[in-house]
Amino acid sequence: MSFEAAVHAQAIELDRLALEMCASAGSGHPTTASSLGHITTVLYFHTMRHSPELPDYPTADRLVLSEGHAVPIVYAAAATLGIHFGADPNNRRPMTVEDLATLREIDSALDGHPNPMEGMPMFDAATGSLGQGLSVAAGLAEAARLDGLDRRIFCIIGDGESREGQISEALDHIVDRGLTNVCPIFNCNQYGQAAKVSAQQSAERIAAKLAAYGYETITINGHEPAEIKKALDRYIEISGDPSATPVAIVAKTVKGWGTPSLQGGGWHGKPASGQHLENALAELAERRAELTSALSSTDSFTIQPPDAFESDGYTATADLPSFTEAMAARDMTSVVHTGRFATRRAYGVALQALGKANKDVVCLDADVSNSTFAIDFASDADLSGRFIECKIAEQNMVSVAAGLSAAGKIPFVSTFAKFLTRAYDQIEMAINSGANIKFVGSHAGISLASDGPSQMSLPDVAWFRSFATARDHRGNPACYVLQPADAYAAYALTEIMAEYEGACYMRTLRPDTEFLYSDDDVFNLGGFHQLAEGRDILLVASGYMVHEANKALEELDKAGVSAGLVDLYSLPFDEEKLLDVANASGGRILTLEDNYGAGFGSAVADALSASGDGFELAQMHVTRIPKSGRTPEAVLEYCGLSVKDVVGRCLEVLEVTTA
Amino acid sequence: MSFEAAVHAQAIELDRLALEMCASAGSGHPTTASSLGHITTVLYFHTMRHSPELPDYPTADRLVLSEGHAVPIVYAAAATLGIHFGADPNNRRPMTVEDLATLREIDSALDGHPNPMEGMPMFDAATGSLGQGLSVAAGLAEAARLDGLDRRIFCIIGDGESREGQISEALDHIVDRGLTNVCPIFNCNQYGQAAKVSAQQSAERIAAKLAAYGYETITINGHEPAEIKKALDRYIEISGDPSATPVAIVAKTVKGWGTPSLQGGGWHGKPASGQHLENALAELAERRAELTSALSSTDSFTIQPPDAFESDGYTATADLPSFTEAMAARDMTSVVHTGRFATRRAYGVALQALGKANKDVVCLDADVSNSTFAIDFASDADLSGRFIECKIAEQNMVSVAAGLSAAGKIPFVSTFAKFLTRAYDQIEMAINSGANIKFVGSHAGISLASDGPSQMSLPDVAWFRSFATARDHRGNPACYVLQPADAYAAYALTEIMAEYEGACYMRTLRPDTEFLYSDDDVFNLGGFHQLAEGRDILLVASGYMVHEANKALEELDKAGVSAGLVDLYSLPFDEEKLLDVANASGGRILTLEDNYGAGFGSAVADALSASGDGFELAQMHVTRIPKSGRTPEAVLEYCGLSVKDVVGRCLEVLEVTTA
Repeated sequence: MSFEAAVHAQAIELDRLALEMCASAGSGHPTTASSLGHITTVLYFHTMRHSPELPDYPTADRLVLSEGHAVPIVYAAAATLGIHFGADPNNRRPMTVEDLATLREIDSALDGHPNPMEGMPMFDAATGSLGQGLSVAAGLAEAARLDGLDRRIFCIIGDGESREGQISEALDHIVDRGLTNVCPIFNCNQYGQAAKVSAQQSAERIAAKLAAYGYETITINGHEPAEIKKALDRYIEISGDPSATPVAIVAKTVKGWGTPSLQGGGWHGKPASGQHLENALAELAERRAELTSALSSTDSFTIQPPDAFESDGYTATADLPSFTEAMAARDMTSVVHTGRFATRRAYGVALQALGKANKDVVCLDADVSNSTFAIDFASDADLSGRFIECKIAEQNMVSVAAGLSAAGKIPFVSTFAKFLTRAYDQIEMAINSGANIKFVGSHAGISLASDGPSQMSLPDVAWFRSFATARDHRGNPACYVLQPADAYAAYALTEIMAEYEGACYMRTLRPDTEFLYSDDDVFNLGGFHQLAEGRDILLVASGYMVHEANKALEELDKAGVSAGLVDLYSLPFDEEKLLDVANASGGRILTLEDNYGAGFGSAVADALSASGDGFELAQMHVTRIPKSGRTPEAVLEYCGLSVKDVVGRCLEVLEVTTA
Repeated sequence: MSFEAAVHAQAIELDRLALEMCASAGSGHPTTASSLGHITTVLYFHTMRHSPELPDYPTADRLVLSEGHAVPIVYAAAATLGIHFGADPNNRRPMTVEDLATLREIDSALDGHPNPMEGMPMFDAATGSLGQGLSVAAGLAEAARLDGLDRRIFCIIGDGESREGQISEALDHIVDRGLTNVCPIFNCNQYGQAAKVSAQQSAERIAAKLAAYGYETITINGHEPAEIKKALDRYIEISGDPSATPVAIVAKTVKGWGTPSLQGGGWHGKPASGQHLENALAELAERRAELTSALSSTDSFTIQPPDAFESDGYTATADLPSFTEAMAARDMTSVVHTGRFATRRAYGVALQALGKANKDVVCLDADVSNSTFAIDFASDADLSGRFIECKIAEQNMVSVAAGLSAAGKIPFVSTFAKFLTRAYDQIEMAINSGANIKFVGSHAGISLASDGPSQMSLPDVAWFRSFATARDHRGNPACYVLQPADAYAAYALTEIMAEYEGACYMRTLRPDTEFLYSDDDVFNLGGFHQLAEGRDILLVASGYMVHEANKALEELDKAGVSAGLVDLYSLPFDEEKLLDVANASGGRILTLEDNYGAGFGSAVADALSASGDGFELAQMHVTRIPKSGRTPEAVLEYCGLSVKDVVGRCLEVLEVTTA
């Protein structure tokens, strides 16, 4: 059988399977799926170098299905080829056509959208929230280049999806970084969900934009096997050369190809069932008769296996120097002697030391590395090859990190904590994907002061803490929230994040802060430190507020109040242990944070109220929208969080309870 | 004096003022500011039709400074022209050069980045988090078109900033919507923060992209007055014609223009002081001598006033029909009789009724209106002119809404609650701007079921709740979080949101839910409803979980447990009142939500722990990453939130406390 006929036959078979599985599930996107039947066939049955038995082989070519809701067509290909799947890496088996009927069942690995963590190692990241996959593909491509692997990363993006700004960010990134090993394929089936796509997302307009972005753009009929193959071959031709003009493919396709009764507006995300399904299957059968001469079989295709992977057996063994040693190595011992150093600066020191100790650590930043101090990594000649400048495009940066993580890197991603908000959807998808990314948000809270609230992170603790209340697929808190109060803590926690497998979010501060700890202090994910003991009341603070609390302790002492202080540097934290400390402190707690509520104080409230005991809790946090102020003290006062306010609130709590 | 010389003289003066004010503040971005001295001069002193005494006049042309950190140059212009400012609308005065020295002081309206709410009515929205202003400009332009106003909206965007995907989204939006009244001006000064901009953001590349996006692109020397004027005049020529090709200006500028000692990398965000400042001022003096023949004065310029505004005196007076009446008007009374109707569907019914009753209500959606039921508004012939389809681009959608709000509209913005995450940065900036936007996130929580977690909103309650713990500039909760449990509640809360001035976030659900309320039930921001009284324990639930709680009550009753039930449909809520109910329920509370923690239950924990009384609180929420399941029940069970789980937890709580 000719290649064309074989592809048509196989595509039609995949389309049929997609229709059937969505009917079985009672939901899904079969018409999107069938707009990709031919491209999926050519990729999985011909072009991609992969091995069905080894679904996450490190050198295998990859497909990132950015248009995640099209996944039924990829499941169909996997079932036909017997691609191994299963959540337990030691207990995988080939997918079968029978498995397809379990689509979207609660106990099925065939989730509604791709997710490797549900048992689909053929995927690298969870997709389904649109616009993210091209960045993931770029991250996989970055890793392949770092590792010297000839690996091709294909990415399918919907036309309606390409409206998402992150796609533009990824397109810029690929050109900037010479990631010619990425093959973006735009699936132009002309329909979004509620209506046809805008003229701005027509195949012609997308092609014109791609050319303006610097791509060699190939427009094809996405259902013509010869055209698909020719375009992919052209991509392959240049894909090994970082200096070549990158290729992008614009594929004109038909949503609901092969089944005219399911075409046009109105069938997005609708599974055909009953008579509709029968009609559609009959239509597909007609297509088969028209386009092929005999039943296809996978014998028509030969799948090239991936190159053999030779692991260099690397494991990071080097211990990090202590903070003092690291500072000495940079001739900064005099700075240590000042007794003050910003946590963002200490992060830079730690990151650089980490980069030298562990070659899997990579660093990404968004044009602010001289503020976040990722620059310490970026400007180190030994490390600069592992620094990825992502420019002012945080969404792309985070999903690139997800791709890097999937390829075995340990990405440290930094920008202002406020600007990480730009990428919260991407961060959540990364967490769902099991990504091992460390998010470091600098200039956290109001101590940023003079730039004002457009640069301050205020609801971020609440958002990340929400993940801390749930478990990820490994059974760990879905994200740790860390806020070192001094340079030693920042240094230690950076190392700890690298040793831990899972998502972490660390907040660093703009101003210099005094040292509270030393090289000998030990920090743990989930731990906290008690800095002072007191019988009357316990201050529980984090970050910048630990220092304000310290000053408050002095004032309280003068007023005859015995106050304890806990540095709550981690969420979640050891609740039982904190309750013990609270009990020993008169059962009165005052929490302090320079961000909006639902954060640290609320986490303490959760613990206290779950205990059932009679604690007294007062929370202090930012309760108004901040503004610029020339000093942290000015903004703290503006927000009612000055030392005076803290002392006053303590006395209030004590008056009430001793009344 | 010639126009050119006058512009140079004025620009140099503004540059000087920018340098001085940043020196005074000890922070700021003077070199960015001076890359815009000429453009700012031509805009404020010549091109824009505005009135310094009436800084927020409804017909005046506007500048949206997307590149917010350049604000010193705009403050300088305002001080020179005496543009009125001040937080109290009844107590404004002209800005003076003396005011400039207060930049970034805690009690100064001259915030580090533009914010109308800090007393700068010349601005429409807070900017400073990059990439958002062009969408705001588009929103202002949308409003102008709706109101039939000939209003020109200028927007300055940085070159490094244009990497942000939202800029691409806004560019598409402007073309799609024929918003030729927007004038995007790209400030290509070649430098970002940490380094020069990428080649992808060169003036040439930006111009090529703009052409591909469908713009007539004019590249100019951003310091040549004649070129600036000519480009702006061309924009003006086409700006009244929605069918014209939109114009965009690419201005090649110099960061630190006029002060060679402050040029090149390394001066971003650094105020010059001491000798550096003196050198720079001397350099500017040299520029003045070179480029102008005498001291300029604002007499050289004539500012055109805006067209007189004739208010139509409209105030919405029409009452909304009841839910029952609204359903009858749509021939859907039979549906009412089924006793079930999804809250997302009820939202559509309410929105349509609202649109008819209040012509200031506008509706925006992101290609999912047939899922969110914004389609009920969009497909109504009387209302479709006020529906803005934003396609798959949520960031742009939210900032467009901020622009619409600034122009007096009441935007209802909808998409899946999960996809609103894409726009959290923009939502926060809108809240900071005092925007009156109602965010409606559909398919909230895990009851979405089969699409899986890439479409489910899980940490959203925590994030929005964080704003609920703070006050906005009006003194109200910075955002209300609303979750109607049935159609009547959804209908009522939609109306209430429209009557309230300030940000609200409402979650709607995918599945049909039973009616709990009737037309006679009253809902309030900050209220809650007690659905059942009980002596032993109080269930506090929200949204879908209210229905699960109801089923649990039946089971508990059989087990001899007297359980109460509160529908906590609002955050914040009346804490004192809830504590009373809790006290009457044995002091034992079980909270129920189908999202991650730090949400509703945590809000209850905050209230209980603040009371100092001995309550027992158990929280049930999602504690693992969900997956697809074919029914809501399957996913609830997967997440430990089935009716059986709820009953079991109640009994646990009671056993513990009665032991």
